[in-house]
Amino acid sequence: MAYPVSPLASPFPALPDIAGVVPHVVRAGYKDWGRCDLTYVTLDEGTAVAGVFTKNVCCSSEVDLGRENVKLGRARALVVNAGNSNAFTGYRGREAVEQIMEQVAGHIGCPKEQVFVSSTGVIGVPLPKDKAREGVEKALSAEPCSWEDAANTIATTDTFAKGATATAMIGDTKVTISAIIKGSGMIAPDMATMLGYLFTDAAVSPEFLQAALSAANLRTFSCITVDSDTSTSDTVLAFATGKAGNAPVTGFDSPGAHAFAAAVHDVCRQLAHLVVRDGEGAQKFIAVSVSGAVSDESARKVGMAIANSPLIKTAIAGEDANWGRVVMAVGKAGEPADRDKLSIGFGGIWAAREGLPLADYDEAPVAAHLKGQDISIEVDLGLGEGSATVWTCDLTHGYISINADYRS
Amino acid sequence: MAYPVSPLASPFPALPDIAGVVPHVVRAGYKDWGRCDLTYVTLDEGTAVAGVFTKNVCCSSEVDLGRENVKLGRARALVVNAGNSNAFTGYRGREAVEQIMEQVAGHIGCPKEQVFVSSTGVIGVPLPKDKAREGVEKALSAEPCSWEDAANTIATTDTFAKGATATAMIGDTKVTISAIIKGSGMIAPDMATMLGYLFTDAAVSPEFLQAALSAANLRTFSCITVDSDTSTSDTVLAFATGKAGNAPVTGFDSPGAHAFAAAVHDVCRQLAHLVVRDGEGAQKFIAVSVSGAVSDESARKVGMAIANSPLIKTAIAGEDANWGRVVMAVGKAGEPADRDKLSIGFGGIWAAREGLPLADYDEAPVAAHLKGQDISIEVDLGLGEGSATVWTCDLTHGYISINADYRS
Repeated sequence: MAYPVSPLASPFPALPDIAGVVPHVVRAGYKDWGRCDLTYVTLDEGTAVAGVFTKNVCCSSEVDLGRENVKLGRARALVVNAGNSNAFTGYRGREAVEQIMEQVAGHIGCPKEQVFVSSTGVIGVPLPKDKAREGVEKALSAEPCSWEDAANTIATTDTFAKGATATAMIGDTKVTISAIIKGSGMIAPDMATMLGYLFTDAAVSPEFLQAALSAANLRTFSCITVDSDTSTSDTVLAFATGKAGNAPVTGFDSPGAHAFAAAVHDVCRQLAHLVVRDGEGAQKFIAVSVSGAVSDESARKVGMAIANSPLIKTAIAGEDANWGRVVMAVGKAGEPADRDKLSIGFGGIWAAREGLPLADYDEAPVAAHLKGQDISIEVDLGLGEGSATVWTCDLTHGYISINADYRS
Repeated sequence: MAYPVSPLASPFPALPDIAGVVPHVVRAGYKDWGRCDLTYVTLDEGTAVAGVFTKNVCCSSEVDLGRENVKLGRARALVVNAGNSNAFTGYRGREAVEQIMEQVAGHIGCPKEQVFVSSTGVIGVPLPKDKAREGVEKALSAEPCSWEDAANTIATTDTFAKGATATAMIGDTKVTISAIIKGSGMIAPDMATMLGYLFTDAAVSPEFLQAALSAANLRTFSCITVDSDTSTSDTVLAFATGKAGNAPVTGFDSPGAHAFAAAVHDVCRQLAHLVVRDGEGAQKFIAVSVSGAVSDESARKVGMAIANSPLIKTAIAGEDANWGRVVMAVGKAGEPADRDKLSIGFGGIWAAREGLPLADYDEAPVAAHLKGQDISIEVDLGLGEGSATVWTCDLTHGYISINADYRS
């Protein structure tokens, strides 16, 4: 962690253990750094798995294989390599992933399709098979570690370890989710990327776990942006061991299903916010709320056009309530909008209503709001019932320093 | 012009006079600055007009009216206001534009639809009608000015005046194009924007002029980006007085049509490059050439995904041949691409071919290329015959300083 800790960092929370889940970390030595870089998590037999993956068509072999194997619904282990993303490495990169899957599967005695692998770090260099083999060998006999150790070990350019937890009642049974994530930009230097893992003791079918994760993803990970760039390796996996002993949840009609889905959503939202709070160079956390759109998806797209606008992100960095730039971003989003129905506010105070600047607009409370660390931008399109909130950070000299002053 | 002149600036070229076109500049006092801010260009009777306009749905009244009136095909005057964009000002903004159109039309004795108005500068403040009326009144009796004066007067945050010229032979007649443009970002602070004007003595029909301008626009203005933001006021107009006396060109079958269209393309390309060269904070001019795409339009979209990527633009600022970020941008463009057929180079030297880093890749000549001011990035998708070149600049601390350190 070469850069100073983000001013928006949160302390690592107390994450409960999850029955049937055991994390371990070891040092494979993928890079010449004095820290652990291989995370190995074992999952008891019968663990359900679900996943969401990057839409980048130049994705890594890890993503290709994960996307395929998650459809089979079962997992026994997770391996995360840090320091090498293994992306854009052709057949040699794929061989390295399959080697890890086979090595772990041979040890556990499970189909290799139940071993999930992620890698993050430099691209274009195939993951060294010898280092992977030795690292995994050590991991298979390693002592269990804490969640915080695991969160630190999957990290690359992150400036703080990230975790989240939530509980839900399924019938009379409390189920728990503990989760970790890494990422400090949709892409960080050297293709570091967003990798997130949720672990729960709930008994849920793979199909329902996927439905809950996909729904949460739409409103959380798909609603954050640091720099508009999309990683080749983004992956979020959810694992459910079933050890809590609740009556299995197989669909939204099952008792407790909505409570569980809400807990998944809660954890995903916490994780997504943590990634933004570690955005490269971030000094301010920005929530963009769009209402009055023709649909929720249209609202999300307008929100992302605002959250991706360098001119808006630099204006917030400069503590400037530049609502004209918000008008511009709404107009360029490619979604239905009407200049003369548009309202724009900051910190809950309207600056413009229905296409006109407010005559009695008092900038003083807005200016005070913009001096804080948590900024909100409100947009009402005045067209329909669609709404969405998306999150981003400001664009500062720190972003340029990290990405330009840096030499690979 | 408050900022230092761009290191990529070009001297203003010697622009020939165009028969039937007379530029004038006066001071309307839209802002409290000691310079002219209203440009008035008269056009002889029979002048054909064509135009391309921003796709931003929150566009200004000037754009609404211009888009409508350009369809009628004829122009007698152009008025450009600098210092106030008159965008997001509702009916009051529209009234100010119509007042200018009527005032000029009354003086010339032409339909008001033949008077074209553009405005650029702060938004949300209706153009003051009294200042506009007095400014236009002065302009109607002002002495003619030079092209360079006109180019300086339409400017706002530009750091240098921008002009371009080209000639073509239509039959035995030489026709000339002189053109000016302003812009230093798709959006500059306070919604300053790209406004471009081409003037020619060629005799061409409005329909053919529009066809030539639209075709050129697709390969020039639509292929540049500074910060991915899209202005509410972007406008390029072409005026043809017919004074050269050539046999009128009415379509691509007319003699000289292709030569004229090539000259229009040439001028548009020069103007587009000048805007990028004045990009906020730009230190390097970047050409991104994409080949092997399934279509030209697909190639353009991939090129724009690369040219809009903050991570690539910061890497170039840091003189870092970070081809991994180019892989990422290709993959996120949403266009057909195959990781294993992708080739990427800098300055004409391949770094990766067909999905793999080159084993004998020598970074030394690439590093030398990246130290220069004119950078090229080459991408071959290996899929088809589509190609495109787009242009952008690097993303530097200067961009942040201009847009964040600045307070409106």
